[in-house]
Amino acid sequence: MAHLGFVGLGVMGGRMAKRLLAAGHALTGYNRTKSKAQWLLDLGMKWGDTPRAVAETADAIFTMVTNTEALQSVTGGPDGLLAGLGPGKIFVDMSTVSPAASRELAARVAARGAQMLDAPVSGSVATLEEGNLSIMVGGDRDAFEKIKPILQDIGPKVTHVGGNGLAVSMKIATNLSLAVQMLAFSEGVLLAEKSGIPRETAVEVLLHSVIASPMVKYRGPFVLKMPEEAWFDVNMMQKDMNLALEMGRHLDVPLPTTAVTNEFLTTARALGLVKEDFAVIFAVLARMAGIKP
Amino acid sequence: MAHLGFVGLGVMGGRMAKRLLAAGHALTGYNRTKSKAQWLLDLGMKWGDTPRAVAETADAIFTMVTNTEALQSVTGGPDGLLAGLGPGKIFVDMSTVSPAASRELAARVAARGAQMLDAPVSGSVATLEEGNLSIMVGGDRDAFEKIKPILQDIGPKVTHVGGNGLAVSMKIATNLSLAVQMLAFSEGVLLAEKSGIPRETAVEVLLHSVIASPMVKYRGPFVLKMPEEAWFDVNMMQKDMNLALEMGRHLDVPLPTTAVTNEFLTTARALGLVKEDFAVIFAVLARMAGIKP
Amino acid sequence: MAHLGFVGLGVMGGRMAKRLLAAGHALTGYNRTKSKAQWLLDLGMKWGDTPRAVAETADAIFTMVTNTEALQSVTGGPDGLLAGLGPGKIFVDMSTVSPAASRELAARVAARGAQMLDAPVSGSVATLEEGNLSIMVGGDRDAFEKIKPILQDIGPKVTHVGGNGLAVSMKIATNLSLAVQMLAFSEGVLLAEKSGIPRETAVEVLLHSVIASPMVKYRGPFVLKMPEEAWFDVNMMQKDMNLALEMGRHLDVPLPTTAVTNEFLTTARALGLVKEDFAVIFAVLARMAGIKP
Amino acid sequence: MAHLGFVGLGVMGGRMAKRLLAAGHALTGYNRTKSKAQWLLDLGMKWGDTPRAVAETADAIFTMVTNTEALQSVTGGPDGLLAGLGPGKIFVDMSTVSPAASRELAARVAARGAQMLDAPVSGSVATLEEGNLSIMVGGDRDAFEKIKPILQDIGPKVTHVGGNGLAVSMKIATNLSLAVQMLAFSEGVLLAEKSGIPRETAVEVLLHSVIASPMVKYRGPFVLKMPEEAWFDVNMMQKDMNLALEMGRHLDVPLPTTAVTNEFLTTARALGLVKEDFAVIFAVLARMAGIKP
Repeated sequence: MAHLGFVGLGVMGGRMAKRLLAAGHALTGYNRTKSKAQWLLDLGMKWGDTPRAVAETADAIFTMVTNTEALQSVTGGPDGLLAGLGPGKIFVDMSTVSPAASRELAARVAARGAQMLDAPVSGSVATLEEGNLSIMVGGDRDAFEKIKPILQDIGPKVTHVGGNGLAVSMKIATNLSLAVQMLAFSEGVLLAEKSGIPRETAVEVLLHSVIASPMVKYRGPFVLKMPEEAWFDVNMMQKDMNLALEMGRHLDVPLPTTAVTNEFLTTARALGLVKEDFAVIFAVLARMAGIKP
Repeated sequence: MAHLGFVGLGVMGGRMAKRLLAAGHALTGYNRTKSKAQWLLDLGMKWGDTPRAVAETADAIFTMVTNTEALQSVTGGPDGLLAGLGPGKIFVDMSTVSPAASRELAARVAARGAQMLDAPVSGSVATLEEGNLSIMVGGDRDAFEKIKPILQDIGPKVTHVGGNGLAVSMKIATNLSLAVQMLAFSEGVLLAEKSGIPRETAVEVLLHSVIASPMVKYRGPFVLKMPEEAWFDVNMMQKDMNLALEMGRHLDVPLPTTAVTNEFLTTARALGLVKEDFAVIFAVLARMAGIKP
Repeated sequence: MAHLGFVGLGVMGGRMAKRLLAAGHALTGYNRTKSKAQWLLDLGMKWGDTPRAVAETADAIFTMVTNTEALQSVTGGPDGLLAGLGPGKIFVDMSTVSPAASRELAARVAARGAQMLDAPVSGSVATLEEGNLSIMVGGDRDAFEKIKPILQDIGPKVTHVGGNGLAVSMKIATNLSLAVQMLAFSEGVLLAEKSGIPRETAVEVLLHSVIASPMVKYRGPFVLKMPEEAWFDVNMMQKDMNLALEMGRHLDVPLPTTAVTNEFLTTARALGLVKEDFAVIFAVLARMAGIKP
Repeated sequence: MAHLGFVGLGVMGGRMAKRLLAAGHALTGYNRTKSKAQWLLDLGMKWGDTPRAVAETADAIFTMVTNTEALQSVTGGPDGLLAGLGPGKIFVDMSTVSPAASRELAARVAARGAQMLDAPVSGSVATLEEGNLSIMVGGDRDAFEKIKPILQDIGPKVTHVGGNGLAVSMKIATNLSLAVQMLAFSEGVLLAEKSGIPRETAVEVLLHSVIASPMVKYRGPFVLKMPEEAWFDVNMMQKDMNLALEMGRHLDVPLPTTAVTNEFLTTARALGLVKEDFAVIFAVLARMAGIKP
């Protein structure tokens, strides 16, 4: 494509933009705090003064922001991304937001003659940097086909899962298991530990067992030593759980393990651990079991 | 070792005995229903008329039975295994039983001058037949070292995790995640499906995501088509959950996801699904979500 | 007070208005569907063409609507209640809405020089008609003192619990126990019944035990025979549970029994029972226990 | 009846025995620690050297012990109560034990030509002393009719609920709501408190609301000030919850609120609060909400 735009150049978004630049794309970017994007300007990215300006410049515009409210903030209003869209343009939101909000936004994008795709990613910063990110895409197939080669410059596994909003739905349906698996894993470690098995041994056995999902493999060792910086903090994890529970209520799907696990994320928050990686749910349960995390 | 004994020649136990025979060991076996062991007699196994007779004949005696009650049944009484034990003999229980019961039995074995190991296995019939079974062992290290080569004829990965009862503790601490992961997985599939994503697509995406533990990988497809025969049925799964919950109460470890998930296994039982593979927990949740399993 | 206004003349609101008329107050009313308020016009109520018109006419204006969205609908916009408020007027919302939304609205009311009270009620239509309704009030004490005598014409027990939004907070904190107590009661009835005790006997014993709250006393018999018309349906009950869970997340209070119970209300919804009294949660659990409700 | 016997003269049993003496019955008693029964001997009770001796002396024998194990201990063996039973005698167990164990014991009593009733009580020491205890009875109706006048000397409300074991079943089905209602109540208090409502006010409002069961009324104030001595401690409460969960598994009744609440009793235990009244579940949740109990 002739020209790309990127709005939201934080930890994930910035690295995605970098990969697009590295792949040879012309790119205009916008971030609420310009200074945080200076390193990308140094790499050749152009600056757009507003999300609208970015959208006016580019043929395909990507967003990567924190939540539904942030997405509404960069897309709405006179300086918003929507105002800069028009026929032929494709807007790709890579954030994890409410599927309902995503679909509503897609309708407004369509009303301007443009097309929208939701394209949330699965994986962490490390996965992204290694070039192993998985990307699910929701929206019209023709728009998908046009955008697919660009998305592959961000991550190799790009899958079309259905219409607008369905990729974020699938993402949320996946992510609820992250927290639940981590809490169940913690239950197992604490049972073993209080039985008399050293925590290290318990973790090692579990990491080699049939319950060792990739998530358990990279996050399990955190119960021995928490990471300096959260990979995915309690706040972000609970945001996804809340989206899942909201979907469950709208679609009439009971979510028993999600609901119970979410209360332990709330406990983590209450205990001041909101900025920790959500693996800290182990520490919450350990306290409840009367032992040192 | 000069001679081995095996008590409990059911689906798992019989195949273990077969592997021991295939490895060249002399073996005397006992099963409550003799006819079910005929195929092993045809393969060269000798018959012992009682568990006690097997124990008197052999230097190392293995058991593989359904639960704590079955273990007490084959070990106790005048014809029981215990009565046939004496100095120098090693008794290896491969069943998944209550850690407390296992430790108590180990004490009675020691009182007769023999040694006991708990050696529960991780994996299904298929894993066993492929020769990939993992075996955790609890008990004295010297007894472990003597038995290790024999266990390796059953499955290659043999790990000593600590004193008596700790291997079954570790097994139970692992297994609770099987059911919890399966229920969380089902929540995700149903959320996706009611969002409008075909069930097949949802399963495929989840099986390639970070939540895809080996358990999820082989059991996830069961939500599309249940297996003819259960790999691990609701009854067996709930037995392990009950053991976990019992341990949690004795050791003061709260087990929130285990407790909640167990109520759905009870529901499966109430709905007449007790003989199905525990993946049927998906069907239970599907009914509660008002859709056809 | 010289003149009262009432917006939202449904099942509860209409009967409240009737009591105000019966107490001799001059009253102007508004309802989305005018025909449903005809009986009140016949009793002497005057009609206001819009919520704004009602607010312009009256000194104290009451609202009783379904939820937060309905409240925003009757208060906002050019025809909304807010536009008709001014210095000296008092706006009393008797609905159960989000405490945050209530506080935000109170600020907007204050900006127009008027005062707002949140005054949710505790009790059903029957309690109201018997003149036994309890009313909790949040907001400034001086406004409370002015309105108190009027509220006492609706129900005798009027309590000031604190500042704006705190009465709805207290209401929601109370209501979560309705659903939880009902589900726990159902667990007890089903345990007794499957033990072999006739359901009627089980209910009778429970209704005379220490767990028999007023709620259990009037709703318990519903497990023998559901009422023709819901007193408080699944939809309304879940609305309050969702408000509680939302508060729990904002205030960092884990709500384990609320969270679990809410998933059974979702199940009721999925099974097509959304319009039934929430006592139907018994029928949901009965199905899960494999017996006829 | 000519002569009564009583085994288990602790806090509850002792006061029951006192009431029987006060009603003019001849009574022989036994307690593991004789010194604790001295006050009853001073009131005219005779001493039996073993449970068997008591059973041999008396026509109707009552037991009141801690749990299933204690009941088996006083009834079994050569000195046990069973050995002293014979035709025409009636054995009344007032403890709360496993319904299955109660039924099994009733069969053994019948084999000796005697009859057994299970007659658990509902209410605390205070209720007993005020003469307001409720007693549910399971077993043959003819035996019930003979014992009824004696039970009425202990407490006025005596109800026959069905065959052997059904009274303890009904008791357990009732008691699960005690813990669940207390946890739900705690959720409400903490939500209110973190909203800004003083804890005292929140408790007062809740105690006057429709959720105020007798249990909530007498135990609710404990969240303001715990009692010096537990009325019903965490250990006893969890014993009943475990019996309920065990019944649920045998009878295939899912018990979602019971299961979740029980994990918080386990947490109380882990935090060293096992001897506190089970109202301490509030303190557990308060810690999890990050505030001082």
